[in-house]
Amino acid sequence: MRAVDVIMKKRDGGPLSREEIRFFVDGVTTNTLPDYQAAALLMAILLRGMSAEETAWLTDAMVHSGVRVDLSDTPGVKVDKHSTGGVGDKTSLVLAPLVAACGVPVPMMSGRGLGHTGGTLDKLEAIPGFRVNLSLDEMKAALARVGCAMIGQTAQIAPADKKLYALRDVTGTVESIPLISASIMSKKIAEGIDALVLDVKTGCGAFMKTEADSRRLAESLVSIGNASGVKTEAVITAMDAPLGNAVGNALEVIECVEVLKGGGPSDLIEVSLELTARMLVLGGVARDRPEAERQARRAIASGAGLDKLRQMIETQGGDPRIVDDYARLPCAAGRHLVSADRAGYVNRVDAELVGRASVALGAGRDRVEDAVDHAVGIVVKVKPGDPVRAGDAMLDMHYRTRPTLDAALALASRAVTIRDERPAASPLIVAEVR
Amino acid sequence: MRAVDVIMKKRDGGPLSREEIRFFVDGVTTNTLPDYQAAALLMAILLRGMSAEETAWLTDAMVHSGVRVDLSDTPGVKVDKHSTGGVGDKTSLVLAPLVAACGVPVPMMSGRGLGHTGGTLDKLEAIPGFRVNLSLDEMKAALARVGCAMIGQTAQIAPADKKLYALRDVTGTVESIPLISASIMSKKIAEGIDALVLDVKTGCGAFMKTEADSRRLAESLVSIGNASGVKTEAVITAMDAPLGNAVGNALEVIECVEVLKGGGPSDLIEVSLELTARMLVLGGVARDRPEAERQARRAIASGAGLDKLRQMIETQGGDPRIVDDYARLPCAAGRHLVSADRAGYVNRVDAELVGRASVALGAGRDRVEDAVDHAVGIVVKVKPGDPVRAGDAMLDMHYRTRPTLDAALALASRAVTIRDERPAASPLIVAEVR
Repeated sequence: MRAVDVIMKKRDGGPLSREEIRFFVDGVTTNTLPDYQAAALLMAILLRGMSAEETAWLTDAMVHSGVRVDLSDTPGVKVDKHSTGGVGDKTSLVLAPLVAACGVPVPMMSGRGLGHTGGTLDKLEAIPGFRVNLSLDEMKAALARVGCAMIGQTAQIAPADKKLYALRDVTGTVESIPLISASIMSKKIAEGIDALVLDVKTGCGAFMKTEADSRRLAESLVSIGNASGVKTEAVITAMDAPLGNAVGNALEVIECVEVLKGGGPSDLIEVSLELTARMLVLGGVARDRPEAERQARRAIASGAGLDKLRQMIETQGGDPRIVDDYARLPCAAGRHLVSADRAGYVNRVDAELVGRASVALGAGRDRVEDAVDHAVGIVVKVKPGDPVRAGDAMLDMHYRTRPTLDAALALASRAVTIRDERPAASPLIVAEVR
Repeated sequence: MRAVDVIMKKRDGGPLSREEIRFFVDGVTTNTLPDYQAAALLMAILLRGMSAEETAWLTDAMVHSGVRVDLSDTPGVKVDKHSTGGVGDKTSLVLAPLVAACGVPVPMMSGRGLGHTGGTLDKLEAIPGFRVNLSLDEMKAALARVGCAMIGQTAQIAPADKKLYALRDVTGTVESIPLISASIMSKKIAEGIDALVLDVKTGCGAFMKTEADSRRLAESLVSIGNASGVKTEAVITAMDAPLGNAVGNALEVIECVEVLKGGGPSDLIEVSLELTARMLVLGGVARDRPEAERQARRAIASGAGLDKLRQMIETQGGDPRIVDDYARLPCAAGRHLVSADRAGYVNRVDAELVGRASVALGAGRDRVEDAVDHAVGIVVKVKPGDPVRAGDAMLDMHYRTRPTLDAALALASRAVTIRDERPAASPLIVAEVR
């Protein structure tokens, strides 16, 4: 097989065979396919598309570039969640302990933040001592002991994805639904899970800006999961404004603990419970949505979810006392309030601008190699629809240095739009795809 | 400027700016742009296209990657010809001496054969001693002395093209009219010529299989040439059957000498005179086509064209006695005739199959690094429309070894189609674009 023939076939809009796709993925994994040929093929795939069948084969080839974890020793239906990424999107830290507390094992592998969106691993590392880089054996042990484990992707999981992603990032070939789908699903399938709930974000703060694109991505992901024997369903949720109030790693950990204590902002609770309930039904411990939601609320009220979080933190080397003493989390000395310059109704809180402002403060990274400051971030004190008076505090900036604050304010000051009219309310849970 | 932004702009169908195109070409020339980014951009250009303006900027940037030769010391309007390549396409060896004999200087830079089409340099090198690798100074001296010079592309001419072509060849990005146009025209403009006649081939043996594609390419080439101050016009000529009878390097040299002696096959004479006449008008020595053709025919009848060929061969180190003694050219010992297996009319002589059979004999190359056997080739003894009887000789194969003959016969035996009906005659000169 010649790489140039495979490239020309896709360039001319033809479907690739399973063997051609495997040849491509194996070539990338073993460095036998030159980067320039992989790049040309990626661009042809982006512009010509791939059928559901081709995308499933691509995913399968990427899974087989590494190991598919065997979790058969762990009893129960292993369920994970994956979000396509948003600003203030912290549901993993709520639902992993909550689902585990209800008896469904959650072996979760997450990523780091990049660009304006945060990443679960960065949030976990805000907890002093917390280790996300467990080996697969340590992960299995933690899962057996606690019922949930939250770790980073190990080198054995879909190594083709790591190489392909690095190449896509520099060749303008990130924004392809088949390539995104294969990247996400290869890692999730390789985890060894039985079921998966996807949170596909839609809106200005999401990777997919329109509901139509989000739906196409959700359908692609669900189709791949089910074809690979992983029961998969997706919820499309709004990501125009940040989810919850806190944006920034330690600040988000606190907000998650608050939800597990029965508090927290209502939008974060709504999305977390939606995802939790679906995981419990897929995990086989609840008959239906209403029963699942009752179980989840009970695990909050009883403190079982919070206990599970403490156990997980302790098992993974972190300091569980942060749950009761937020002062043990990293904290930035600088505080600055952004206030409303007029009265009216908040019409918009631009998630992308808030996310970028948070990155400017140091909470995220523009490049993979950037360091993250876990203490800094933004607490958004208003939601679309809220009435405000001139002078009301809207954004509470937690900053480390003046230049980062200035850079963040240049973005954040444009994030909130106030108008005379109250905006129409829009749903948080937009659609489901199963 | 970030390469990935330029890639994404073209990927999304946007027009690139002059600066972005220069950034790309400079990056390729100086090896500061990684191959994988160049490959992704090439695929995006192939699939998204380029406007006439972008294509002109690309050509200009490629010209400026090297030197633009200064031929102002040579008096007269310097005119060149370029063909997009075909089988038996040997007009350069006829028209360069003929045009020079009529007083128009011809500084011609040519290429080598690749795939089923031949190349002028390989044909010239069939002449013992002939040097195609003159330096620019040697070329200018030869031009001053003889009035024509035929050489290979020097390293100073459009070095970006050499790198881009190598990358296009392995990334499935050859078949793009803007990229083809810029590749051809950058080299021609850099030669320092004042005017150019293009022979854009169309048909099964050509790079462009349809008249519509050939016309698009011709229009693109003419537009770039004129925008760069090189008076450019194009003729679209048929390349379904080989041009002339001979295919293979020494055999084609003999056929060209025959034309300059007043003989040769009529189709080769027709295309050669068409191109010669246009060059003479552009060169300012003839008022119009009829006058130009008269001049050309006179230069054949008087032997002035043949004399010019002798002078050129001698000046470039070759043995001019080949003109009068074909035995001084390389000659293959093996001969094999392919005969008609039935009576009827020749409906088709497939140029691509004849070209590939000739390559199989060793006359051409599948890879750039392959060596060429100048002696071998095929003399096609029939033309579409010719009546044949069973047993009539159709192809005369000049071969070196039995295995190459067998490989060539597997292709050549399918090249000629005989039917009961005489085919409709089709024109050799299909259209002009100016």
